[in-house]
Amino acid sequence: MIGYGFMGAAHSVGWRQAPRMFDLPRAVEMTVVVGRNADAVASAAEKWGWAESATDWREVIGRDDIDIVDIVTPGDSHAEIAIAALEAGKHVLCEKPLANTVTEAEAMAEAAERARARGIRSMVGFTYRRVPAVTLLRDMISEGAIGTVQQVRAAYRQDWLVDPDMPLAWRLQKEHAGSGALGDIGAHIIDMTQFVTGLGVESVTGTLETIVKQRPLQADGSGLSGSAGEGFGEVTVDDAAIFTGRLSNGALASFEATRFATGRKNALTIEVSGDRGALAFDLEDLNSLRFYDRTAPDGRQGFTRILVTEPQHPYVSAWWPAGHMLGYEHGFSHQVVDLVGAIDAGTDPHPSFDEGLRVQRVLDAVERSSSADAVWTGVASPVPAS
Amino acid sequence: MIGYGFMGAAHSVGWRQAPRMFDLPRAVEMTVVVGRNADAVASAAEKWGWAESATDWREVIGRDDIDIVDIVTPGDSHAEIAIAALEAGKHVLCEKPLANTVTEAEAMAEAAERARARGIRSMVGFTYRRVPAVTLLRDMISEGAIGTVQQVRAAYRQDWLVDPDMPLAWRLQKEHAGSGALGDIGAHIIDMTQFVTGLGVESVTGTLETIVKQRPLQADGSGLSGSAGEGFGEVTVDDAAIFTGRLSNGALASFEATRFATGRKNALTIEVSGDRGALAFDLEDLNSLRFYDRTAPDGRQGFTRILVTEPQHPYVSAWWPAGHMLGYEHGFSHQVVDLVGAIDAGTDPHPSFDEGLRVQRVLDAVERSSSADAVWTGVASPVPAS
Amino acid sequence: MIGYGFMGAAHSVGWRQAPRMFDLPRAVEMTVVVGRNADAVASAAEKWGWAESATDWREVIGRDDIDIVDIVTPGDSHAEIAIAALEAGKHVLCEKPLANTVTEAEAMAEAAERARARGIRSMVGFTYRRVPAVTLLRDMISEGAIGTVQQVRAAYRQDWLVDPDMPLAWRLQKEHAGSGALGDIGAHIIDMTQFVTGLGVESVTGTLETIVKQRPLQADGSGLSGSAGEGFGEVTVDDAAIFTGRLSNGALASFEATRFATGRKNALTIEVSGDRGALAFDLEDLNSLRFYDRTAPDGRQGFTRILVTEPQHPYVSAWWPAGHMLGYEHGFSHQVVDLVGAIDAGTDPHPSFDEGLRVQRVLDAVERSSSADAVWTGVASPVPAS
Amino acid sequence: MIGYGFMGAAHSVGWRQAPRMFDLPRAVEMTVVVGRNADAVASAAEKWGWAESATDWREVIGRDDIDIVDIVTPGDSHAEIAIAALEAGKHVLCEKPLANTVTEAEAMAEAAERARARGIRSMVGFTYRRVPAVTLLRDMISEGAIGTVQQVRAAYRQDWLVDPDMPLAWRLQKEHAGSGALGDIGAHIIDMTQFVTGLGVESVTGTLETIVKQRPLQADGSGLSGSAGEGFGEVTVDDAAIFTGRLSNGALASFEATRFATGRKNALTIEVSGDRGALAFDLEDLNSLRFYDRTAPDGRQGFTRILVTEPQHPYVSAWWPAGHMLGYEHGFSHQVVDLVGAIDAGTDPHPSFDEGLRVQRVLDAVERSSSADAVWTGVASPVPAS
Repeated sequence: MIGYGFMGAAHSVGWRQAPRMFDLPRAVEMTVVVGRNADAVASAAEKWGWAESATDWREVIGRDDIDIVDIVTPGDSHAEIAIAALEAGKHVLCEKPLANTVTEAEAMAEAAERARARGIRSMVGFTYRRVPAVTLLRDMISEGAIGTVQQVRAAYRQDWLVDPDMPLAWRLQKEHAGSGALGDIGAHIIDMTQFVTGLGVESVTGTLETIVKQRPLQADGSGLSGSAGEGFGEVTVDDAAIFTGRLSNGALASFEATRFATGRKNALTIEVSGDRGALAFDLEDLNSLRFYDRTAPDGRQGFTRILVTEPQHPYVSAWWPAGHMLGYEHGFSHQVVDLVGAIDAGTDPHPSFDEGLRVQRVLDAVERSSSADAVWTGVASPVPAS
Repeated sequence: MIGYGFMGAAHSVGWRQAPRMFDLPRAVEMTVVVGRNADAVASAAEKWGWAESATDWREVIGRDDIDIVDIVTPGDSHAEIAIAALEAGKHVLCEKPLANTVTEAEAMAEAAERARARGIRSMVGFTYRRVPAVTLLRDMISEGAIGTVQQVRAAYRQDWLVDPDMPLAWRLQKEHAGSGALGDIGAHIIDMTQFVTGLGVESVTGTLETIVKQRPLQADGSGLSGSAGEGFGEVTVDDAAIFTGRLSNGALASFEATRFATGRKNALTIEVSGDRGALAFDLEDLNSLRFYDRTAPDGRQGFTRILVTEPQHPYVSAWWPAGHMLGYEHGFSHQVVDLVGAIDAGTDPHPSFDEGLRVQRVLDAVERSSSADAVWTGVASPVPAS
Repeated sequence: MIGYGFMGAAHSVGWRQAPRMFDLPRAVEMTVVVGRNADAVASAAEKWGWAESATDWREVIGRDDIDIVDIVTPGDSHAEIAIAALEAGKHVLCEKPLANTVTEAEAMAEAAERARARGIRSMVGFTYRRVPAVTLLRDMISEGAIGTVQQVRAAYRQDWLVDPDMPLAWRLQKEHAGSGALGDIGAHIIDMTQFVTGLGVESVTGTLETIVKQRPLQADGSGLSGSAGEGFGEVTVDDAAIFTGRLSNGALASFEATRFATGRKNALTIEVSGDRGALAFDLEDLNSLRFYDRTAPDGRQGFTRILVTEPQHPYVSAWWPAGHMLGYEHGFSHQVVDLVGAIDAGTDPHPSFDEGLRVQRVLDAVERSSSADAVWTGVASPVPAS
Repeated sequence: MIGYGFMGAAHSVGWRQAPRMFDLPRAVEMTVVVGRNADAVASAAEKWGWAESATDWREVIGRDDIDIVDIVTPGDSHAEIAIAALEAGKHVLCEKPLANTVTEAEAMAEAAERARARGIRSMVGFTYRRVPAVTLLRDMISEGAIGTVQQVRAAYRQDWLVDPDMPLAWRLQKEHAGSGALGDIGAHIIDMTQFVTGLGVESVTGTLETIVKQRPLQADGSGLSGSAGEGFGEVTVDDAAIFTGRLSNGALASFEATRFATGRKNALTIEVSGDRGALAFDLEDLNSLRFYDRTAPDGRQGFTRILVTEPQHPYVSAWWPAGHMLGYEHGFSHQVVDLVGAIDAGTDPHPSFDEGLRVQRVLDAVERSSSADAVWTGVASPVPAS
């Protein structure tokens, strides 16, 4: 695993738990974790259960005892590491977003295509796909439970920027973070929409907004370009993005990604309306899925809250008896299950780098639309979901 | 009362109940209801408790024993009737939308302005303002409970057009209905946003959509321009409208008005985020208001579900003890209370015709934006809320 | 109508609205309201729309122009008035509880039986039966939607006695009120349980509790037996009742009636579990009913929230379009609809005085059980639901 | 760890995750898991990450490299193993219920008392105490957030016995299981009530019920005393228990433990009403806690849904950022954290064996009350919560 921040902790749980709860077709060993600070990464290795730590990722991806490279570094290093790892013949799991730019993402997708020909697998880490209720949502749409998709509403709402006194962290500066709410949490709802509907976003109209435009400089100046004497600095990324997409079947999908939804902590919601029914999911109630069946008898219709904790539900039987709740990090175990399963079966796991690229292209189109007064803007080469 | 459709029934409940539950400063008499079909309107008069019925509205507005004219006809006749009534010196209550066009609405606002100088009052019927929880929402924002408004999300979702076999009624044809989901239910969420925030929508970007573009002609051809022999006709109004507005303080408000939200029957929702808190309302749970107080102690914050059925809440003390639910039609009584109160006090009731005009101008800007590929479009002469 | 307190206001709405919203088979005239204080009752008559007022109920029930006597006085006068009215050949609607004692209730049921032979109808006012969702709950059980009833949980929770400084009102003294939470709100959940299941409560075990045992005497001494000099008086009725009943099919039903459920204002809830499904209702969300269908496919089961606002639902079509909420007082209109319909059809309306008596006998058994250390205690002559 | 069933899997997650997510004061090694079937336990050891497996628990508790014995066997073996382990100087974590009988539990509590004198710690595994929202509930009551506790309602509802065709498993036979719903899930709500309120249950009135009295014999006869030829056997344990307890401050607590709540999978709920507020928890929404503050301003009161996923909340900061959900098994990690912390600090962890014994005595009193027609029955030697 390359990287050891918050995502490193979450991926480590996945690697640690998946073999203990599921019957994986191949054994998994947590060999080495890589980071630039030798002491810190050694400490992370010990804490999270990795056998070794290292500081040079290039050396590690050259090792013979490494089969899979899991990339959890910031987005601006994804392309370089992933391409090198694929070329070294390692299967790659890369945390989202695939990259900070479309160009990088394209290079990665091409590298993945070349690697695929040699039996090397690649996967991007949109783990919310693997919340059982989200997988069930996808399955039910694909089985026709709601008929033709006619409208989608997806939102990802947080509130950690509401406080105007929150300092100007590196995540709020474009040169360091690449993007704001759009790239970070907007990417999730674009991927989820495409995943559950099986439809691509083909064009968009949208607006990026920076609600609090200046923030106090951090005391230690960390990550700041300005000098320490100044009191305030400019926020140069969006903190809210509101956009609408046209899906490949013509349906409209509306999106909101914001860090200014006061009181909403991590509220990813999606509702898909079809001509035979509707399905709705809320990450703050992640063990349930709501289903409206328009073919039920008149006067008996309504949203059914399916508690997605039954053995019949995706991934659930490996965990606890019916009615026992799963949480945030279970998706990381499911990701490992699917990746290792695909490697063993010789198939390509999802989401592929192509799917990651597709999300980047939608993000890019939203940025271009926003710069052009919200005019409808085409997404480059959209690819239908496979 | 001119008109006797569904809205006539609702307004009649208001006129009948308000004097019985509230202490009005003046007595109210339900004198006469007017409609074109003499038998039908006579029957409505008897059923709903009007003393007389009549077929000529011009004659009625000339009568000396009439003080208030309540207009519940379709939108295309509002301007003519309202202007005539105001000029005849009658106070006017006009159901929303104020008119089908901005031009008509402007003429009405001017007539109201002239009448005001003579002590004649006018009011447009956005009754959802008078759901106690909505009034409380407005009061709390105005008291500073959520600080500065930073984002608004408003939606009005219905599903009665999801069935593709639903025939092509007059409401789905532009020449008869003027507008679709935007003008009918979108108008409500625009007014509510402006009402509760005290801010005007100054520019918009939006998309109007007709999801089912052709529908079966009605068997009896009622309201159809096409001949009876054809099987299908074109739907010429929008059935979904997705738009974003810039408020007068710079905040963004996102809107959805749709008749394709499968499973949602009459789901008007609004959530207002501020820098000190948030407030959320859902018409399907109309007796409650959710309030997030960001100034509460850390670790104790959350959305509080205020049951708006206490005697301290707006309008509630006139009804039942704490905890007893109100319903849809209570707003029509509250409308009467406020109108009669204003007439007696010699003040101007709200929403004024100016406020109705302002909503029409926003609707018009959305239509223009939609025609121009969603580009940001200014609202004509927005007026700050008074 | 005899009486003009809070219940008088609610019954008046029923009499006033029902003929205006429903097609009643007979015309209804609000002739006269009766009370002891001539000025106050005259004022109520004018306010609520009764043609006259009077102070002598005996005289009124002798009038030829009176067909129906509606009794909304305190419970200790129900028996005398109702029996006299029935003997005078008037149809009687009597607010719940039927009486303060079983003996009185028996006499009333006997009087109703004699009157029935002469075509005179009687009905007791458990209006919560007529909330559309509750009627639907009953219909669905009777259609077999949940199979055999195996467990019932019913609760009525309020909190208006939580404040220990609330003074010792007459309702808290046994000599004036007869009973406390048990008789007032416990009666509702017993009736509702028997109504929706069609089963009788045959025996009970229960505990009555007075949580705050002393309260400040009221400043004006109203309704107090003690002298004004004392600071505190004894609360002599229960303020919480917890009991369990055995239903006629052997199922257990658990009940809680309390005025100490802090934060719960008028929270009547019921959940019925059967071997094929379950149904749940909550008066704080009175426009919905939750249905669990155990015969739905595995992995797709869950509680469906049926919004009981469709034209197919009981009583709803007379009101507003789908999705428009009803409130507390609508049940009073439905009560009038059913009573007038039964009178016109020559059938006996429900709940009958027998059903009201049955509730009193259950209350009495709970009191006897509580006095005997909660030992299981039989209900006198339970009668199966008709 | 002795035992390797479903609870063994859950405890293993706790031992595996706690050191990886929390900063424990001492290192934890998963040394050996013990079971009677050598192959099966070896397989469990490998799967769950235990270094070794063994078949003789007596030998294992004698080993010098063992410091803690974790007992997850069925209840009838708890006493023998726990007492032996304590006498061997090992700290003991024993899964709930502490034992199948009061006598056994008393012996265990005495052994724990003796061991405590030698610095040996013991703890019983009511892990629901360690759901962050439940710990917060306890903390808030103890800080006075709801004032004096006046009423408690606790329920644990499941539905896995609703199907009458479910065969007669060993858990449904008294000679094997000891108790039914009461002992298994009723124990949880008794412990939780005592834990969060800090009050003991001093007397009870209750009824045990076996709703489906006969069930099909299992095909393989496993766990059955009857011969294979018979078609049906008797269910000899309760499948529903409804009881009321008197707490040590005089408040009433009502309880329901049932496996016949159709549609409820693992629905543990508790609501505590006090004179200054109320707190409510639902295990199906385990990341939240609802708080009603009666000292908030009039007209602004309501239940606040606190999302218990902030760093300020108990245990949470070791996991994920604010708003990320935890699940069922996290409590097992928290249990390890608290146990290891107490061992290191030289303090006694909770719940102690005394607390486990107290729960057993309440269960015993409920059984005795049920056998005596529900008469109020004292709990032996209740001990106030420490």
